[in-house]
Amino acid sequence: MALSPDIDGTRLWSDLMTMGAIGGTARGGSFRPALSGTDAEGRNLFAHWAREAGLAVTVDQVGNMFARREGSDPSRPPLMIGSHLDTQMPGGRFDGVLGVLAGLAVVRALNAAGIVTKRAIEIANWTNEEGARFQPGLMGSGVFAGLLPLEEVLARTDRKGLSVRDELSASGYAGTLPVGGRPIHAYLELHIEQGPELEETGTLIGAVTNSSWGCSGFIEIRGENGHSQTAAMSKRRNALVGAAKLILAIEEIGASQEPAGMVSATVIDSWPNNRVNIPHLAKLSYVVIHETAEGRQAIIDRIEEAATSIAAESGLEIETTTAFFRDRLDFAPDMLGLTVKTAEKHGFPVMKLPTLTAHDALSIHMVAPVAIIFVPCRDGISHSELEWCEPDHATAGAQVLLDMALDLANAE
Amino acid sequence: MALSPDIDGTRLWSDLMTMGAIGGTARGGSFRPALSGTDAEGRNLFAHWAREAGLAVTVDQVGNMFARREGSDPSRPPLMIGSHLDTQMPGGRFDGVLGVLAGLAVVRALNAAGIVTKRAIEIANWTNEEGARFQPGLMGSGVFAGLLPLEEVLARTDRKGLSVRDELSASGYAGTLPVGGRPIHAYLELHIEQGPELEETGTLIGAVTNSSWGCSGFIEIRGENGHSQTAAMSKRRNALVGAAKLILAIEEIGASQEPAGMVSATVIDSWPNNRVNIPHLAKLSYVVIHETAEGRQAIIDRIEEAATSIAAESGLEIETTTAFFRDRLDFAPDMLGLTVKTAEKHGFPVMKLPTLTAHDALSIHMVAPVAIIFVPCRDGISHSELEWCEPDHATAGAQVLLDMALDLANAE
Repeated sequence: MALSPDIDGTRLWSDLMTMGAIGGTARGGSFRPALSGTDAEGRNLFAHWAREAGLAVTVDQVGNMFARREGSDPSRPPLMIGSHLDTQMPGGRFDGVLGVLAGLAVVRALNAAGIVTKRAIEIANWTNEEGARFQPGLMGSGVFAGLLPLEEVLARTDRKGLSVRDELSASGYAGTLPVGGRPIHAYLELHIEQGPELEETGTLIGAVTNSSWGCSGFIEIRGENGHSQTAAMSKRRNALVGAAKLILAIEEIGASQEPAGMVSATVIDSWPNNRVNIPHLAKLSYVVIHETAEGRQAIIDRIEEAATSIAAESGLEIETTTAFFRDRLDFAPDMLGLTVKTAEKHGFPVMKLPTLTAHDALSIHMVAPVAIIFVPCRDGISHSELEWCEPDHATAGAQVLLDMALDLANAE
Repeated sequence: MALSPDIDGTRLWSDLMTMGAIGGTARGGSFRPALSGTDAEGRNLFAHWAREAGLAVTVDQVGNMFARREGSDPSRPPLMIGSHLDTQMPGGRFDGVLGVLAGLAVVRALNAAGIVTKRAIEIANWTNEEGARFQPGLMGSGVFAGLLPLEEVLARTDRKGLSVRDELSASGYAGTLPVGGRPIHAYLELHIEQGPELEETGTLIGAVTNSSWGCSGFIEIRGENGHSQTAAMSKRRNALVGAAKLILAIEEIGASQEPAGMVSATVIDSWPNNRVNIPHLAKLSYVVIHETAEGRQAIIDRIEEAATSIAAESGLEIETTTAFFRDRLDFAPDMLGLTVKTAEKHGFPVMKLPTLTAHDALSIHMVAPVAIIFVPCRDGISHSELEWCEPDHATAGAQVLLDMALDLANAE
């Protein structure tokens, strides 16, 4: 195993807090939806810090940013470290951000120690991991890995009708580099766990074994429009009432799956959404996560049954569809072993565990061996202004990242 | 009682269908939200028909349109006939439209018969009765009657942030005439009933005695944001789940009031409304209608109780407020008597009944004696693309309007 310089934890923490202040919210979170003005500011700051550390910054056609530290053999595929700087609306200061800024901490430590690695090291900031403003999420990494067609992604629009293409231009991040199509030696992503396991077991490092079985569901409830101040209550076919019944049914199904799986209805739109009108159309969507494929299917089936029974009793038309199926991925065993070995070398308590939700590493898994390294987050909370990672945990995670990067970047 | 020329029912029906085609929807309704492009087209057509009938068209500073047929004594306050051409999103072809276009039918009948009335007759098209795009509704008539301040109303914005002031200009209907402040002899509004009473009793004409006790309520439900794919189900404080419980509680309260009152939750907004996030904030609003003040209050009280109990059991914060209280109005008895007498003269079955919902006449009641004349609508349906008024019923209503207008416009 290679020499191990130290991570500057103070600087890493300072960077996390500085980035968090861009789009900072009063409750301590950040609001940097993909390709927004604040996302552009966050990108600018990352590019500034990267150049300051001697890295060459490039941008591809979907806005993915790469900050490259050249290796002694530029012809070899690089070791890549990455995650994302975009946030939920609002999100926290660590989800994604830690993985990118820890990459800078790795490079600075190598610079300070005067180490030149055989392979280049590239830090990636993937466009729109969150899928908060534009869908689907994992957008930049998905195009990079050949999972999503570039042209389709560029045509995607947000709720205001603004396209990815136009917002890339407006934000100054419509790059010219082709997306993907080049070899990567290995990919490392440091991330907060977003669950309570590490904290509850007093573990510092999580070595991620596999992803979960997930999918999204969409429900359309159709009633009949009418006047909410004159139509007889008993004759109303109120789509919002049907939606409310489904929200509660879905929550109950989710609660019954704990801890193997979960589901909540999280998105609602209702028409015409005026006080004096009976809602004639409502749309819901939900996300399912489960440890097994059978569990995922069972949740979908129970939601279908609930929809059928609510439709029958209410006279509403209810249509359900599912999409964005994500099957379990098992990450490269040697990468997993390296994570465990590196944590143990430092005496950091380490455990193997799955990831419930998706990360850019799930895209990159399709084109390179990946390791996802988790550190604890308070109460398992994420996608929240309350999201929190202890400074020491961030430093420890970055230290593991550094040692793994050194090892992998010097490999044949 | 004055001479009684005949309404041209064929022309009236043709006008209703032509106006309905502006913003026409595939299911037979119309989409002409106040001050939209289609509303402007509808206004242009009304102005064209009015000028064709020899009327002078003026527009005031809130966009109210007046089409005036001069009387033999221009110094006397005019008899006014009015309603509105804006629709819900979508709405039907008769709500409001009938009252305005029947005014044109009255004037054309007088023209054909060569009758000059003592007082002028003005046909009013009030701006934004529906309150679908800009709130509150009854906007133009409210400013005219001194109930709403002009400047406040002009500053109101729609969901896109566009202001009444800017959209009045954009639509070409930012007039220069001062709003209101001038005497009106009497005001007549012909309208579809929007309830089932006339149809169910085989009655052709409704003479409206009074309005109902109404108000609106607003509920804010606050939970905590989090990740919908990782946060333990049992720890979620999901604002949308609280909203769903309240929607069902409100619907149940409404159902228990029938037929004296009604309430439904009709508007919902949820944040951040992304699939991978637990909703941390949801807002609902509802409208209450009741025959009595006590009944209205009882509904509000029961909703408060439901909110308190849902908050206690869920750990959500729930805040309720009420606004837009509308107390019962009793319309002028001599106007009511004239409606009944006129209908009986024609042998039209007539009944007295209250109006559940609001009309521009409720505003004008504050500055002049008003009569609201109802005709049946199919199944009591309105604010709906399915809204329907039989051609013969429209003609009969316009005939009553004509005779009442003649009587009132020739009065001392």
